[in-house]
Amino acid sequence: MIVGIVGAGQLARMLALSGIASGQRFVFLDPAPDACAAPLGDHLCGAYDDPALLDRLAERTDAVTFEFENVPENSIEFLSGKVAAYPGVRALATARDRLREKTLFLELGIPTPAFAAVDSLKQLRRAVRDIRLPAVLKTCTLGYDGKGQYLLRKNGDLERAWERLGGVPLVLESFVNFDREVSIIAVRSRNGETAFYPLSENVHRDGILRTARSRPGDPFEQQARSYAERLLHELDYVGVMALELFQTGDKLLANEMAPRVHNTGHWTIEGAETSQFENHLRAILGLPLGGTAATGHSAMINLISELPDPAGILALPGTHLHCYAKMPRPGRKLGHVTVLAHNEHVLQVGIDQLSLLIE
Amino acid sequence: MIVGIVGAGQLARMLALSGIASGQRFVFLDPAPDACAAPLGDHLCGAYDDPALLDRLAERTDAVTFEFENVPENSIEFLSGKVAAYPGVRALATARDRLREKTLFLELGIPTPAFAAVDSLKQLRRAVRDIRLPAVLKTCTLGYDGKGQYLLRKNGDLERAWERLGGVPLVLESFVNFDREVSIIAVRSRNGETAFYPLSENVHRDGILRTARSRPGDPFEQQARSYAERLLHELDYVGVMALELFQTGDKLLANEMAPRVHNTGHWTIEGAETSQFENHLRAILGLPLGGTAATGHSAMINLISELPDPAGILALPGTHLHCYAKMPRPGRKLGHVTVLAHNEHVLQVGIDQLSLLIE
Repeated sequence: MIVGIVGAGQLARMLALSGIASGQRFVFLDPAPDACAAPLGDHLCGAYDDPALLDRLAERTDAVTFEFENVPENSIEFLSGKVAAYPGVRALATARDRLREKTLFLELGIPTPAFAAVDSLKQLRRAVRDIRLPAVLKTCTLGYDGKGQYLLRKNGDLERAWERLGGVPLVLESFVNFDREVSIIAVRSRNGETAFYPLSENVHRDGILRTARSRPGDPFEQQARSYAERLLHELDYVGVMALELFQTGDKLLANEMAPRVHNTGHWTIEGAETSQFENHLRAILGLPLGGTAATGHSAMINLISELPDPAGILALPGTHLHCYAKMPRPGRKLGHVTVLAHNEHVLQVGIDQLSLLIE
Repeated sequence: MIVGIVGAGQLARMLALSGIASGQRFVFLDPAPDACAAPLGDHLCGAYDDPALLDRLAERTDAVTFEFENVPENSIEFLSGKVAAYPGVRALATARDRLREKTLFLELGIPTPAFAAVDSLKQLRRAVRDIRLPAVLKTCTLGYDGKGQYLLRKNGDLERAWERLGGVPLVLESFVNFDREVSIIAVRSRNGETAFYPLSENVHRDGILRTARSRPGDPFEQQARSYAERLLHELDYVGVMALELFQTGDKLLANEMAPRVHNTGHWTIEGAETSQFENHLRAILGLPLGGTAATGHSAMINLISELPDPAGILALPGTHLHCYAKMPRPGRKLGHVTVLAHNEHVLQVGIDQLSLLIE
């Protein structure tokens, strides 16, 4: 089977490493000549909306997927007419647009922080009156890793936020003083089979994910599953999806969904019976899904801006190093470390030691 | 780090898939233009003893290893003068020659079936008188998957066996009516750190490995470890080694060693904390070793001659499919399936179901 991926970054790279092991081949579409997945398959180097390249991608593959949600909808729509393309256009369009996404959450009875559309400074003022401060003003599309967001603490912040972000569709969201951030990685196959990984508990700093740890048996797992399942079903979804949630008290509030394999699921490579990458490929190729149970306790720590000495990392018990072969740059995700342990306590010690080495 | 591998078959391919994940790059030397690991790195296409290619391999890499023991000793000796090359020449030379290997077993107090060198029909007759029948006549070098062997059941077989194999150095070995075949995968790093996987219990048919299952907690594990450890130490070994043994009653008899990652260790990809491939790379690159504990119960079933329908395989619980992207050919290993289970009973059911699908 030949799989096409729109995008050839680290997510495409990890998909390819998983798929090549089971005999699949890969074709990537990515404008960057040095895209880090490119050496693992054929690389169509050009724009994500280049019709000739999209044609070639469709012609040469049995199924197509994408590694990030900032792919133009039209590209996936175009591909869908020619080849099995998953997850579908509606999932992509929903995840690309925060307003549409949050509206869907409401429709499906999935609790989410209060929000309002903002297209003018006047609308922003009205939204702030309704939602109250603190609140976060976000661009509806193209935000990632904390970019395209502005935290409003007091009324005096409104004009500055509008100056910074105004001119594109925006959404104002109530700021949630959460107890913790969690996510659930879910997967649905072509024939409607679903599976759910244990919750990930996630820590962000400066808008960038730092650590994600598996929480098998978490008391909120069932709630998160139920929300993810509604989305999978409603969107007739095929592939892996991540749903990020805030826990406040005894409630989960949906923050956002990602229609793809997700950074908070990287621990599944060593820490689950089947990795999120293998299951995404099984799903889009119409194959039965693999088990999603955790094989122990594990966590993932991102390597950002620079790579540490591998020997120091691997000297810590239970560690596995992943590097994406990307040029170092401040704020760039260059790799991650998985740490495995037999219980939560040993895992915490491992996370603490790793954090010391990496900071 | 850039790793050179002499040979670009499925073992090199699985090494590369593991190493690429942690940021390593690969250069392969293999005469086959369509060698299955070649797309995962740079391919020097030519003879294993081509001095110009060996030079290039050494110049372009930080460490060199080999994926099978039929590499000419001189090639590894040549490489050793220019780059870190592991496991060393002595390990290779020992494993390439059954007589040398068995002599080393004896020297190290590792029990092995009775054997004798055979260079003439007269010597064969004398050896048969000493060792008795049944016995197996084997070429000292270049045997694999049951090739280069002749089982002697009665005295009338001697001339025919001599006709078939004579003319190269031979060894006659007592035929062991074993209770089971096991192997131990061991690893030693550059600084002398060692680690041992749980025993594999192996089933061969027609000289080709069919299944290998992990046996965590096997009562013979300590005995096997002790024998493997003597070899690692004596050979100043670096990398993964497999030692195959026969169990007869309460004894283990060493059959042969392989100075490389090994088919009976493929279950470690999903079934152990660190795969044999990752640990081999860590060892030869001077990095700390990863944990070798089994994460559950697992088995590996080889896919030989033809590949089954992936959907049928993956519909069985706990299965993972590996394909080597090789052209099908009778008797050729094309891939394997790993099956994971929470206990021995469920594992046995999985093995039985898989065997039905594959046969």
